[in-house]
Amino acid sequence: MLEVRNFPVNKIYPFASSRSVGKKIRFKSQEYEVIELTKENVEKYAKDIQLALFSAGASVSKEYAPLFAQKGIYVVDNSSAWRMEKDIPLVVPEVNPHTLSKDKKIIANPNCSTIQMVVVLAPIHRYVRIKRIIVSTYQSVSGAGGKAMVELFNEAQVVLEQLKKTDSLLTFNNSFFCVEKQQPSVFPKQIAFNLIPQIDIFLENLYTKEEMKMVNETKKILESPDIKISAQCVRVPVFRGHSESVWIETEKKITVQQAKEILSIAKGVKVIDEPTSQDPRLRYSTPVECAQKQITYVGRIREDLSCENGLVMWIVSDNLLKGAALNAVQILEEMVTRKIV
Amino acid sequence: MLEVRNFPVNKIYPFASSRSVGKKIRFKSQEYEVIELTKENVEKYAKDIQLALFSAGASVSKEYAPLFAQKGIYVVDNSSAWRMEKDIPLVVPEVNPHTLSKDKKIIANPNCSTIQMVVVLAPIHRYVRIKRIIVSTYQSVSGAGGKAMVELFNEAQVVLEQLKKTDSLLTFNNSFFCVEKQQPSVFPKQIAFNLIPQIDIFLENLYTKEEMKMVNETKKILESPDIKISAQCVRVPVFRGHSESVWIETEKKITVQQAKEILSIAKGVKVIDEPTSQDPRLRYSTPVECAQKQITYVGRIREDLSCENGLVMWIVSDNLLKGAALNAVQILEEMVTRKIV
Repeated sequence: MLEVRNFPVNKIYPFASSRSVGKKIRFKSQEYEVIELTKENVEKYAKDIQLALFSAGASVSKEYAPLFAQKGIYVVDNSSAWRMEKDIPLVVPEVNPHTLSKDKKIIANPNCSTIQMVVVLAPIHRYVRIKRIIVSTYQSVSGAGGKAMVELFNEAQVVLEQLKKTDSLLTFNNSFFCVEKQQPSVFPKQIAFNLIPQIDIFLENLYTKEEMKMVNETKKILESPDIKISAQCVRVPVFRGHSESVWIETEKKITVQQAKEILSIAKGVKVIDEPTSQDPRLRYSTPVECAQKQITYVGRIREDLSCENGLVMWIVSDNLLKGAALNAVQILEEMVTRKIV
Repeated sequence: MLEVRNFPVNKIYPFASSRSVGKKIRFKSQEYEVIELTKENVEKYAKDIQLALFSAGASVSKEYAPLFAQKGIYVVDNSSAWRMEKDIPLVVPEVNPHTLSKDKKIIANPNCSTIQMVVVLAPIHRYVRIKRIIVSTYQSVSGAGGKAMVELFNEAQVVLEQLKKTDSLLTFNNSFFCVEKQQPSVFPKQIAFNLIPQIDIFLENLYTKEEMKMVNETKKILESPDIKISAQCVRVPVFRGHSESVWIETEKKITVQQAKEILSIAKGVKVIDEPTSQDPRLRYSTPVECAQKQITYVGRIREDLSCENGLVMWIVSDNLLKGAALNAVQILEEMVTRKIV
């Protein structure tokens, strides 16, 4: 993303764990050797570093982000470690760039499913105040990492091989559709041609951590602690791109046409919503169509038949881009624009 | 299903279009020749027939169901042709069996995604009155027929073959994940490793016909025209088994524990809801686990954080069984129990 968006980088310092030492990272046709992430190396290199992008999980971030920050380095962290800390900005540049400031050295990059939702909802919220959000997600396996993609690939191969041996896909022997789960595995159940209504661990209130991230991060990013939110997060056998069915209830009435007009000029959003178009691409977006696109798509915008002032919609975006790397780089860009760095 | 459930059948008369004439149907180790569906043949065979199961689409049903009914034959119709007709019972035996009666010759079998939802919601509705329902579906391709299953199979094979040629699944060439859509096709877009937020055609209110089936049929089956309902129906790359994220708002408070108790004794329903169990099978149900099971599974039952008296849940059932053939045969069984036939 730094390369694709041509962010002005003089030199990169690829930090990683000892396992990766010896590996090389290619950036703008130059190779850089991996530096082991240790306190000593942070001391050693800090004076040459201006910005740090963290994407190594919450525990590494908890330990090392402050070390960088103490040296005056701005850290944009992709983990959940800092997101809900009171003094840490949780930033989606199209939504709350004003929360960035010179004195906030650590900046949190929100959860993937949250980002794509708020980038669409924020312009509506500004216009008519959203009171309540209900969201059911359809999240791709890449959100669980590269190994998860391999797991889907391998399981899908097993199922297809089994099905080749049957006379008919309408076979009444369901075992052909099932794979035996190999251990260790990323997912707790089969993901190929199946669904898993669990992302991350379960919390005491019976929601998963992923669901509560959507609840809490959305309130923080929209700076509206009173919005009522409920989420159900489901893993689907898609490689890349998260999708969401979203219902909103607003304080004032907003028509479908008004919502479309607002969203058609919203930054980072593209309305694809001509359901009866001759051209299937214009009807609504789907994950394979959103992959590698630096934008969030919204469609199927219509009135919520179950409440007075409500809308339903379908939101799709590349979880590896807007949901992660793109948003992080956009935060850096915003910091440049605001002359913070 | 007639065979599996040992419904008392003396003889079957397999009617079909002229294309199927010459084919034979095996039932309880006996073979029956297909009879062409014509007015003449209805006249010819009607006197020997007591019950008719229709599963040939709305237009055939509109034309032929009345011909059978006029001869005093009870017709259980799986199409949408009669469902919303005022005098036609729309029956889920666990929910509204009392709507069956001697004088109602045509009985409609509801839409698959509706059946599995109401079988779970009806016991709760009786207890605390449901005011509002929001549902996001995850519907398998078998709901679109055998050809749709083949389409998913073929597309998945193409994608996997393409991915085998890549160095890494994290390839930045998205074309490896895409297939070119062959025409004619069942689905308007790629379904393998993708999602399609459209089932059936679009209506004037921007909902699909499938979504409005869920809205209207649910109200009719629960005999509660005032319930507010909104649905978003999405096709997912799963062969068999529909899943649903369902939010309900009730008139009176119902706790998670109360809901579980009610559902644990509800007919046709099984609660699988121990999210932190050591045994993954007990945590929640998934489509591959529900396939070929004659039951509807509910889990992930928890409070709706976005409203006072609300619950969220995850409902899974085999769309070809409870969503179609099983419910139809259960209607026949109920008619026997009630001495209607």
